[in-house]
Amino acid sequence: MKIKKSWKQKIHEVIYGTHTQAGRLFDIILLVIIVYSVIIVMLESVPSFDEKHHKFLNYSEWVVTILFSIEYILRIISINRPKKYIFSFFGIVDFLSTIPKYLSLLFVGSQYLTAFRILRLLRVFRILKLVRFVGESNNLVRSIHASRTKIFVFVFFILIISILLGTVMYIVEGPTHGFTSIPHSVYWTIVTLTTVGYGDISPETPLGQFIATVIMIIGYGVIAVPTGIVSAEYAAGMTNKKNIAPGKTCPDCGTEIMRIDAHYCRECGHKLSDD
Amino acid sequence: MKIKKSWKQKIHEVIYGTHTQAGRLFDIILLVIIVYSVIIVMLESVPSFDEKHHKFLNYSEWVVTILFSIEYILRIISINRPKKYIFSFFGIVDFLSTIPKYLSLLFVGSQYLTAFRILRLLRVFRILKLVRFVGESNNLVRSIHASRTKIFVFVFFILIISILLGTVMYIVEGPTHGFTSIPHSVYWTIVTLTTVGYGDISPETPLGQFIATVIMIIGYGVIAVPTGIVSAEYAAGMTNKKNIAPGKTCPDCGTEIMRIDAHYCRECGHKLSDD
Amino acid sequence: MKIKKSWKQKIHEVIYGTHTQAGRLFDIILLVIIVYSVIIVMLESVPSFDEKHHKFLNYSEWVVTILFSIEYILRIISINRPKKYIFSFFGIVDFLSTIPKYLSLLFVGSQYLTAFRILRLLRVFRILKLVRFVGESNNLVRSIHASRTKIFVFVFFILIISILLGTVMYIVEGPTHGFTSIPHSVYWTIVTLTTVGYGDISPETPLGQFIATVIMIIGYGVIAVPTGIVSAEYAAGMTNKKNIAPGKTCPDCGTEIMRIDAHYCRECGHKLSDD
Amino acid sequence: MKIKKSWKQKIHEVIYGTHTQAGRLFDIILLVIIVYSVIIVMLESVPSFDEKHHKFLNYSEWVVTILFSIEYILRIISINRPKKYIFSFFGIVDFLSTIPKYLSLLFVGSQYLTAFRILRLLRVFRILKLVRFVGESNNLVRSIHASRTKIFVFVFFILIISILLGTVMYIVEGPTHGFTSIPHSVYWTIVTLTTVGYGDISPETPLGQFIATVIMIIGYGVIAVPTGIVSAEYAAGMTNKKNIAPGKTCPDCGTEIMRIDAHYCRECGHKLSDD
Repeated sequence: MKIKKSWKQKIHEVIYGTHTQAGRLFDIILLVIIVYSVIIVMLESVPSFDEKHHKFLNYSEWVVTILFSIEYILRIISINRPKKYIFSFFGIVDFLSTIPKYLSLLFVGSQYLTAFRILRLLRVFRILKLVRFVGESNNLVRSIHASRTKIFVFVFFILIISILLGTVMYIVEGPTHGFTSIPHSVYWTIVTLTTVGYGDISPETPLGQFIATVIMIIGYGVIAVPTGIVSAEYAAGMTNKKNIAPGKTCPDCGTEIMRIDAHYCRECGHKLSDD
Repeated sequence: MKIKKSWKQKIHEVIYGTHTQAGRLFDIILLVIIVYSVIIVMLESVPSFDEKHHKFLNYSEWVVTILFSIEYILRIISINRPKKYIFSFFGIVDFLSTIPKYLSLLFVGSQYLTAFRILRLLRVFRILKLVRFVGESNNLVRSIHASRTKIFVFVFFILIISILLGTVMYIVEGPTHGFTSIPHSVYWTIVTLTTVGYGDISPETPLGQFIATVIMIIGYGVIAVPTGIVSAEYAAGMTNKKNIAPGKTCPDCGTEIMRIDAHYCRECGHKLSDD
Repeated sequence: MKIKKSWKQKIHEVIYGTHTQAGRLFDIILLVIIVYSVIIVMLESVPSFDEKHHKFLNYSEWVVTILFSIEYILRIISINRPKKYIFSFFGIVDFLSTIPKYLSLLFVGSQYLTAFRILRLLRVFRILKLVRFVGESNNLVRSIHASRTKIFVFVFFILIISILLGTVMYIVEGPTHGFTSIPHSVYWTIVTLTTVGYGDISPETPLGQFIATVIMIIGYGVIAVPTGIVSAEYAAGMTNKKNIAPGKTCPDCGTEIMRIDAHYCRECGHKLSDD
Repeated sequence: MKIKKSWKQKIHEVIYGTHTQAGRLFDIILLVIIVYSVIIVMLESVPSFDEKHHKFLNYSEWVVTILFSIEYILRIISINRPKKYIFSFFGIVDFLSTIPKYLSLLFVGSQYLTAFRILRLLRVFRILKLVRFVGESNNLVRSIHASRTKIFVFVFFILIISILLGTVMYIVEGPTHGFTSIPHSVYWTIVTLTTVGYGDISPETPLGQFIATVIMIIGYGVIAVPTGIVSAEYAAGMTNKKNIAPGKTCPDCGTEIMRIDAHYCRECGHKLSDD
């Protein structure tokens, strides 16, 4: 019993941990295999490449599938609460990245689902711990988080504007000029408002072109709003950090001294020594 | 007389108020019906969908129209000054969202006007009180408001530039390359300046392509201006609010108290009274 | 002699001045005529409109031309140094907005040049004194001015990048895929880098599409640079203004007190009274 | 021996130095020849121009090639450690900008490689020392440098999102609507996300258009992130530099001196020594 547990723990350490050398090696190998599997899935979808190298691609897929299956099983075995892993986001992704290949033996067409394997790329963020790099004390994440309500309302506002202007364009241009329905006109309005501008549909009547112009200028100006919010929040985060005299606290009551130029503790009135 | 008034007041409370449970329930139901009616209007404009489900869509429209009519009448009855409501923005929108369906019995083609119903979506902002979410003490609204003159001048400047460059492009490219008239060239210039770029018209002469390049780089650089204004105004609003207790000074030495949570003056150590 | 001079002065006051009621009225009438003449020029270029209303448009043009001619002559007469006006920017524009119509009697095709009249729109800025509205103490103009060297270097950098990447795309894609020459490829690169994306040419080889992707992401990221510069300069301008205690000067030496929290004049050491 | 060395030194001074008048003249002439050679390479690629002026272009190329060859040899001769120059970035570029023309005598098609000459344009930055203009104490370079990790993670994040959404679009739209393979769909997703929007491929199914809409709005919102980072870093750099005399404190009371131009401490009135 003791031996078996230690065996499990060792696997857990290698698969889930990053402290041991074996754990780090496992992460790097996993990363390489994930990137390799994504390249295989992508190349398989290119008809000209798939024709020439179908055999090699199919072989590679099976190798990757079996490796992923082993990893999946080991992950379940070595964890204390397997259910929590199985029904977690990454648990479902790991399952969906192996099962389609086996199903392809039974059903034709299920190989499309191997594309789910691409979701495993998200594990890259976890392995590389990229989020940590993003900013000192995650200022970027914090500022996006702080402005999420505002950005949600902004997107909602954009949608309402798009539905209104899309309907106007449907009435003005009509199905004869490519605005075949209101949903299609709304799609066109968003294409224009976000300054993407495919040109698959474009207004042809003078009035339609005038309204299109108004939409473009709105879009061009409105782009300022989310940028302004995120910039300001981010800058505020930076300033706050800077204004704090690092590590300076009132010797009497322990309050953190926020203003560099303070002479007296703002909590207890204790005279601060100048340093 | 007293009973009738109380009956009116109850309706007023439910329709206009949000304090009672019935009022909140009414708002949610209204919201659902508005969204439902917008979806109906949108689907009706899709030919393939309308063909299959015309009967159901028409029936739904009538139900929604009748519900909106009842709501409209109740709103007029239960308000003290009906004229003010009838000629308000939402009063007109509410009227225009019911009348076209009745008119469609008399005139063919007036069903297009049911699209006005989409304007009722704007009521969503009122019901959800989304504006409140936008920012603490409406900093976003304030900063857009503060920079409105600058943005107006900016848009005006963009328009003049567009008319000038559009005319130049009309002379350079001419009707043979798709620049059929000056208004059309101005339309193209705005499409390019805002980086939308449909590609329905694109310059073909080397000189035209050179000028197009200049327009693009102007547009790419000029996008910085509204963003810079809104960012700076927004940031200024945040800084002001966070750091300064408005108008609070130390009663002993007159130092402006910067931190809202300060208990003692940071200059002379005088105890501040909490307010 | 004395009477003649006073007659000149009166015209000068009306045409160049804005202090008298007549001067302001003249400006408003001039503004209306300029906008009217621009609309005429634009409508004349629309073939379908010109066909129907050719006579009216031609008549309007002559009326505007004669009015502009009279204004031009009066401007020359009433100014002290006519040469300075004639060879100034607006002097040349005013001349070019009248002469083409007279030339059209002699040469066919010179009516195109009436489009120069559109440049008179720039006078709108002068008449409305819009620049004054742009910002308190022209902060916007100042911040654009302060960052002009940086923006020039930025544009220069964009151009070099575009020439390099355009050449690479010419070699990769070649004339068979629409990249007919290096200048044309450079044009395409700028279209892509500024996120305009007409789609008149688009890469077709996998390598070309990969490089295009890199160009797009550069363009998407690089847009941050001018915005960042202008935002920061603008914000700095706002902050500076705020830090200045408005109108507070040292009572002893007259130095402007910049820091609100200063206790002593930073120039002469005079103790400042708290207010 | 002494004479020869002084002869080498003189050449070194002219070619590498910018202090002497001859050195500055050499730089300007080199700049003109580089720009001229770039124009020649560009014009040569325009079929219609090359046909008419082929002889002149070929002659110009040979003149430029010989001048560049002489410069290359002189650079090697006059430097102390020739190997360091030859294998430096500019050494390789200088070599590649001369050799293709000589090779064109032996091999057909190698004239394409003369396009490498365009890389010499980068020398412009060195000659004009443009980097110096970018900002006082290179604040722009510093802020881009400071945010490089964040921008790298951001680009990486965009790529993962693009691969995921590109795969979804490949499954939804499929090869019949132009999404021929996953790499091609990923290319389309980046075209949409960066708001370039060529329109060479555009979604046709309602579900595809809905997902496209989501991608556009993500792209429109996400553009705020790099702008926010660069703006904030740049603003932080400006604030630091402008307000704080680095490390300067009042010798009497220890107050940090904020204004560089202060003569007296603003806290205690102590006279500051000028340094």
